[in-house]
Amino acid sequence: MSLIVQKFGGSSVANAERVYNVAEIVTKTYSQGNDVIVVVSAQGDTTDDLIAKASEINPGASKREMDMLLTSGEQISASLLAMAIEKLGYPVVSLLGWQAGFYTSSAYGSARIKRVMPDRIKKELDKRNIIIVTGFQGINRYNDMTTLGRGGSDTSAVAIAAVMKADLCQIFTDVEGVFTADPRKVKNARKLKYISYDEMLELATLGAQVLNNRSVEMAKKYGIQLEVLSSLTRKPGTIVKEATKVEKMLISGIAKDDDVARISIIGVPDRPGLAFKIFSKLSAKNINIDIILQSVGRNGTKDISFTVSQANLKETIDILNPYVELIGANSVVYDENVAKVSIVGAGMETHPGTAAEMFEALYEANINIQMIATSEIKISVLIDRCDADKAVIAVHNKFFSEAMDA
Amino acid sequence: MSLIVQKFGGSSVANAERVYNVAEIVTKTYSQGNDVIVVVSAQGDTTDDLIAKASEINPGASKREMDMLLTSGEQISASLLAMAIEKLGYPVVSLLGWQAGFYTSSAYGSARIKRVMPDRIKKELDKRNIIIVTGFQGINRYNDMTTLGRGGSDTSAVAIAAVMKADLCQIFTDVEGVFTADPRKVKNARKLKYISYDEMLELATLGAQVLNNRSVEMAKKYGIQLEVLSSLTRKPGTIVKEATKVEKMLISGIAKDDDVARISIIGVPDRPGLAFKIFSKLSAKNINIDIILQSVGRNGTKDISFTVSQANLKETIDILNPYVELIGANSVVYDENVAKVSIVGAGMETHPGTAAEMFEALYEANINIQMIATSEIKISVLIDRCDADKAVIAVHNKFFSEAMDA
Repeated sequence: MSLIVQKFGGSSVANAERVYNVAEIVTKTYSQGNDVIVVVSAQGDTTDDLIAKASEINPGASKREMDMLLTSGEQISASLLAMAIEKLGYPVVSLLGWQAGFYTSSAYGSARIKRVMPDRIKKELDKRNIIIVTGFQGINRYNDMTTLGRGGSDTSAVAIAAVMKADLCQIFTDVEGVFTADPRKVKNARKLKYISYDEMLELATLGAQVLNNRSVEMAKKYGIQLEVLSSLTRKPGTIVKEATKVEKMLISGIAKDDDVARISIIGVPDRPGLAFKIFSKLSAKNINIDIILQSVGRNGTKDISFTVSQANLKETIDILNPYVELIGANSVVYDENVAKVSIVGAGMETHPGTAAEMFEALYEANINIQMIATSEIKISVLIDRCDADKAVIAVHNKFFSEAMDA
Repeated sequence: MSLIVQKFGGSSVANAERVYNVAEIVTKTYSQGNDVIVVVSAQGDTTDDLIAKASEINPGASKREMDMLLTSGEQISASLLAMAIEKLGYPVVSLLGWQAGFYTSSAYGSARIKRVMPDRIKKELDKRNIIIVTGFQGINRYNDMTTLGRGGSDTSAVAIAAVMKADLCQIFTDVEGVFTADPRKVKNARKLKYISYDEMLELATLGAQVLNNRSVEMAKKYGIQLEVLSSLTRKPGTIVKEATKVEKMLISGIAKDDDVARISIIGVPDRPGLAFKIFSKLSAKNINIDIILQSVGRNGTKDISFTVSQANLKETIDILNPYVELIGANSVVYDENVAKVSIVGAGMETHPGTAAEMFEALYEANINIQMIATSEIKISVLIDRCDADKAVIAVHNKFFSEAMDA
């Protein structure tokens, strides 16, 4: 008998029919002799609908009250799923985040799980109940409802899997697994059987919206084996586990990230410490910067370029503009029409020609590279946004030709 | 400075505009220097919508999961109301039933409040916060969500008023107060300035759907002054308080109850204890019986008639049918086309002609009386349902002529 955690996203429980589909998956797993803990997101567009309701009343509502509102979404989906499982004749109980023992930090809207106290969960498992837990939420030290931020249900699932030492944590979603590229954009994208935590982490961070990256970090830390799979097709998905247990592929995936903007500070005087000062200024405001490029400008000055998310663009410009004058730089310019395309693969550590192959693919497709960033298992390039889809296909064809498919 | 509890029903917070209207009432009360605790129901049809969602998935869902589902309704309305109050610039915090300390019995779907532990409420009042509490719900000894049953938000409001020794508990609804008869049916129905707990209790029990009768019982027990008023017109409503403080009106109201069916057991042998046995049989199944009439039948037998609610009719017949044979009675017959019309008034205790006046009004309107039941402050008659509205108008005209109106 194994303990299996199954997480279902909003699209998997969007309506009564899909709730039943999930109930069938869960009860099948249970009837095979497993203990099952289910983590569920709010139905379909519920969260967006609730946000719209709040905006109509007060677009500047406090995050505390937003969390009070939004946590009702999973409460609804969890109880409906429990009812469907009751109907199929299995013992089941739904639990809210706080009932399941999810204690979080106090940061409403983006709380972090501090600890999980699974007393109630253990008690219900002892009764041989299937347990439905509301994902995405917990309780803070004031006894107030908190949410973990978008994608937080993945983290809820991995956290409970870690605390309960689950044998497997299945993340059910609307795609069949982790693909070598977005299958909606790249016809011959392939589903991976296995991927390592590190590769999955890079892909998640680089814009592949399959798994929330906090959940992958946590799975890696506690050695929880993940499986990403579809609740609709019920085929085996992609297993995410330790790199040592994974056959190292040269490239495991290609990701595209549109949510990026490039900022350049032109004519920064060539004095030590200025770049540090600029970036610590942004870091103090919780603005994440990504690819950084420093180039030689005119008259002994430097140009410093970097990327931020679209959401942070305006604030970054507002912070930098007065500062630029102070340090004697010329100006701040930005470009929103960019995209980041990345390849990720544990094999490239020991295969030095990979970057060159990627650049060759882009050159052959007549795509200009603006910036480059690399890590041990990742290469990212910044290009014109209008070239992004073409770039993904070109790079994918380079690394995943038909011959490799066999 | 007073402590005022304000309860708003579902129609008072049905949409964004009405939520704002409530926020204005609350903040006006607060800005006059009062402490304010608000108890709120789910928005408009939310509860019915959630019930429909559940029925689609599992019409036989457990009451535990129904309560888990339904408690989300007030969570949504409470947080939205808090957001509206934030927008108006006042300090506010919304609390779920369990956060506000509502501990209930374990009877999911119809739980009773066992105690209220208002630690958190006191803490928030000390911070001068307006407090929004979700009505209708609490938590049981298993730490599970419970609901108090329909109309339970009134009880939540009175309970918190009692524990906090509030100076006034205002029940905002979609009518302007307690009327001498249903103002939608009786043109010249008058709004009462005052009514006693006992009269209100009789009216609530007899079908006037202004206040939940458990809440009136509790208000009487703890001496909480209630005010029933409209959230839309903002006129003074009806004060419900101790009879000694109320000028005794002969008649304070006329109520009609359609949810009633008459059952007769024909030809019951004239042996002592048979009626007791019959009624204890029904009581064991939690079936409430109302007006009881015993008449002499043929050949030394008796006919026993009584009323039950429509919902209990079928079950009552099913229980009685085999039993009737056992005790040697003839048959069970029933009539669904009846209605109960009642007059309530503390003054009738000392005014013996009241019943005769009511019967005269019905006689003049050519309405036949099937059964009669009286208490010290109430007279109820059972009549044909098609005569019910006419009866209410006739009786109302008798007791509330223009002359009395002055």
